Amino acid sequence: MTLWECPFPISDYPAVLMAHGGGGRLTHTLIEQLFLPAFANPALELQHDGAVLELELSGSRLAFATDAFTVSPLFFPGGTIGSLAVHGTVNDLAMCGAQPIALSASFILEEGLPMEDLWRIVQSMQQAARSVGVPIVTGDTKVVDRHKGDGVFITTAGIGHVADGIEISPRRARPGDRVLISGAIAVHGIAILSVREGLEFETTLESDSAPLHHLVARILEVAGAGVHVLRDPTRGGLSSALNEIASQAQVGIRLDESSIPMGEAVRGACELLGLDPLYVANEGKCLVIATPDAAETILATMQAHPQGAESAIIGEVTADHPGRVVMRSRVGGTRVVDMLSGEQLPRIC
Amino acid sequence: MTLWECPFPISDYPAVLMAHGGGGRLTHTLIEQLFLPAFANPALELQHDGAVLELELSGSRLAFATDAFTVSPLFFPGGTIGSLAVHGTVNDLAMCGAQPIALSASFILEEGLPMEDLWRIVQSMQQAARSVGVPIVTGDTKVVDRHKGDGVFITTAGIGHVADGIEISPRRARPGDRVLISGAIAVHGIAILSVREGLEFETTLESDSAPLHHLVARILEVAGAGVHVLRDPTRGGLSSALNEIASQAQVGIRLDESSIPMGEAVRGACELLGLDPLYVANEGKCLVIATPDAAETILATMQAHPQGAESAIIGEVTADHPGRVVMRSRVGGTRVVDMLSGEQLPRIC
Repeated sequence: MTLWECPFPISDYPAVLMAHGGGGRLTHTLIEQLFLPAFANPALELQHDGAVLELELSGSRLAFATDAFTVSPLFFPGGTIGSLAVHGTVNDLAMCGAQPIALSASFILEEGLPMEDLWRIVQSMQQAARSVGVPIVTGDTKVVDRHKGDGVFITTAGIGHVADGIEISPRRARPGDRVLISGAIAVHGIAILSVREGLEFETTLESDSAPLHHLVARILEVAGAGVHVLRDPTRGGLSSALNEIASQAQVGIRLDESSIPMGEAVRGACELLGLDPLYVANEGKCLVIATPDAAETILATMQAHPQGAESAIIGEVTADHPGRVVMRSRVGGTRVVDMLSGEQLPRIC
Repeated sequence: MTLWECPFPISDYPAVLMAHGGGGRLTHTLIEQLFLPAFANPALELQHDGAVLELELSGSRLAFATDAFTVSPLFFPGGTIGSLAVHGTVNDLAMCGAQPIALSASFILEEGLPMEDLWRIVQSMQQAARSVGVPIVTGDTKVVDRHKGDGVFITTAGIGHVADGIEISPRRARPGDRVLISGAIAVHGIAILSVREGLEFETTLESDSAPLHHLVARILEVAGAGVHVLRDPTRGGLSSALNEIASQAQVGIRLDESSIPMGEAVRGACELLGLDPLYVANEGKCLVIATPDAAETILATMQAHPQGAESAIIGEVTADHPGRVVMRSRVGGTRVVDMLSGEQLPRIC
């Protein structure tokens, strides 16, 4: 089935009504004709108040994460709010060193949302979940009045399994550790902004929204306890993520500007718009902080992975200036890279 | 600390700004000064992308549930959107036969929300979580522009543990089973509506919002495998919940109107407003469908519990009219009780 062959009788209900959230007949029509066929899996089909999962785990550590998604516009090059909501929570689990087991999805719909838009979002969500290999096992739908929402907000939560021997925590960064990133920065934020602002590039700039759990699994396979911190630099970008880690671990971080991968289109757009790419969101990139002896192996592993071809070592953890991130610029100077203050790009995730 | 001694410097930021959702400095101020002190627990304090939980479970069945909350108004007699969001997801887990382990909380804030309102909501959420005995271990906050939200929406997700031998499913209702309810119906919906409409009663009508996991634990303790279905009749009320079960199990359900517990104020309000109490939401009541030989023991156990003093056996599962719910009225006639069609009371949860 393509994205466009919608079996839901949208001619009956071309737009979302308040009653689709009322818990009665229309809510059930929506669940049975739209959500269940898309997300089809045994746990969801029971239509219970929650899902009951049979787990066969070695060890007993479970990761649990959630994210709300309010991105505007709902559709953008490289994804939709639905695929982003799947990737975002899968990545939060992956950053805990976990492999995802199951997702939940809660929808807050605005009265009047075209039913076809909802259908397309749900389809892209399911495509993302299928390609991740993780079922959406439980959910909820509410409807709010016109002008009390904005089309659709989606909150996903996820559970994942953390294997024995894995200890990932922002507090584990140690002086001497290397800082790696899995590819070019600032792509998601600029892709969203280019749609909003109607910017034209030579090629369409697509969001980097992607699931990172396979890449993380490979990294943990080759480097195990050598991996100290994982973090996906989403809202607030690379600089905010690294500032958080520096502050929590009470270490310094020194970046080398020339080693940070960045595409030409993104660089150009940032210059044009007066944006600092270090503060622009990523949705398919992973920071890895690891011991110096593990760093080269991790780098080679990341570069050999489809999601990490452009990976690079971009800096180092230091005992100097604890709590601060500094960057050696291309021209040789050093500047403090502070946490984002204020708001650069609202509603990019 | 009372609800009103807010240590968050609201004089600096008396209302929510877009930047509180930007992932930078203001987001961190909000997390560190408002969310962390309220929800204080070790997993949350790590401020990781998700929480990692050490579980010591007998057996390996995990329940996973989520609910979005968009109730209006945010504050109502007997609760707030925050306490409701805790109770709602705890109850979804309880209806799977699970005892709750941990909750997540995602906030979608509207720009301009008074910071003190957010503070009061978070406090009531934490009071609810503490009284349930379940930590809020991970979360997320987004901010949307004015008129693109409605103060605050909260999505909670929860995980819980299902003990060995417990098999709760809407499909397990069997002819001959008894239908029990844990107390008076339609209280939550009427409490919300009375605030919206400015209705005056002799006493304030408070929402029944309450956690049901202790009551469920007692029921499962005394009746174990004799319990077939648990369901909290929220949106769509008693009739929609029972219609769902009848449809999924392909059984009939026969109710006896005179045995359904209902308060006088609620009955009066429903008559005044032309509402059928069978369709009005409950937020602290539990339907139990159990074998006939277990029913009396369950009833006595429920009545002895603070959350179930007014419990009653209100009907029976039948082999007749599969998929339908019928009710013998006070005056002796029988009518079909259909699923809610359309929307009676929008945004009550």
